[in-house]
Amino acid sequence: MSFISSTPTPPYYAVIFTSIRTDVDDDYRLTATRMAELASKEEGFLGIESLRDEQGNGITVSYWRSLEDIRRWKINTEHLEAQSNGRKKWYSAYKTRIAKVERDYDFASLK
Amino acid sequence: MSFISSTPTPPYYAVIFTSIRTDVDDDYRLTATRMAELASKEEGFLGIESLRDEQGNGITVSYWRSLEDIRRWKINTEHLEAQSNGRKKWYSAYKTRIAKVERDYDFASLK
Repeated sequence: MSFISSTPTPPYYAVIFTSIRTDVDDDYRLTATRMAELASKEEGFLGIESLRDEQGNGITVSYWRSLEDIRRWKINTEHLEAQSNGRKKWYSAYKTRIAKVERDYDFASLK
Repeated sequence: MSFISSTPTPPYYAVIFTSIRTDVDDDYRLTATRMAELASKEEGFLGIESLRDEQGNGITVSYWRSLEDIRRWKINTEHLEAQSNGRKKWYSAYKTRIAKVERDYDFASLK
């Protein structure tokens, strides 16, 4: 599976989640893995691309068919609990941006 | 300066550039730094968030006031040359998504 998500022809939606981690671990990794797994089973989920560096800076972009699909995932019970723990323990700051992908283009070399 | 860009109230635009690096260095880092610097001077530039891991997977999200600003940056002469070298040398694959940020919300703890 490539790092780059194979999303369908636009339009579709992106949730750009940029975050800064605290030093607190306490089930963070387990929960992050679980959330990616749960999200991928949600209706309308199209893909996820995620990176975090050693200073704790992270970018996760998930792709969705519609705003309704994003809303449903946002209020998923387990996800709500993870969001709450995120604010209480794991993140010192984050920003979530909901965006409509209007155009995309890609490149893959034969190298 | 925080890792998380201080963008204005939506709507504004995001360019989500997801990429996989080759092993070829050859001025990559110099050019990447130069492009971030050049972009930040372009009219309508609102911010940039960028990460790359040790496997060569990268996500760069830049934020812009309008599609016209994105277009102007895309055809900037130095940037066009960098894009060409990107396809010839530095990236084995990439995907660019142009998206309209419709909503955002953030969190900053007092910790």
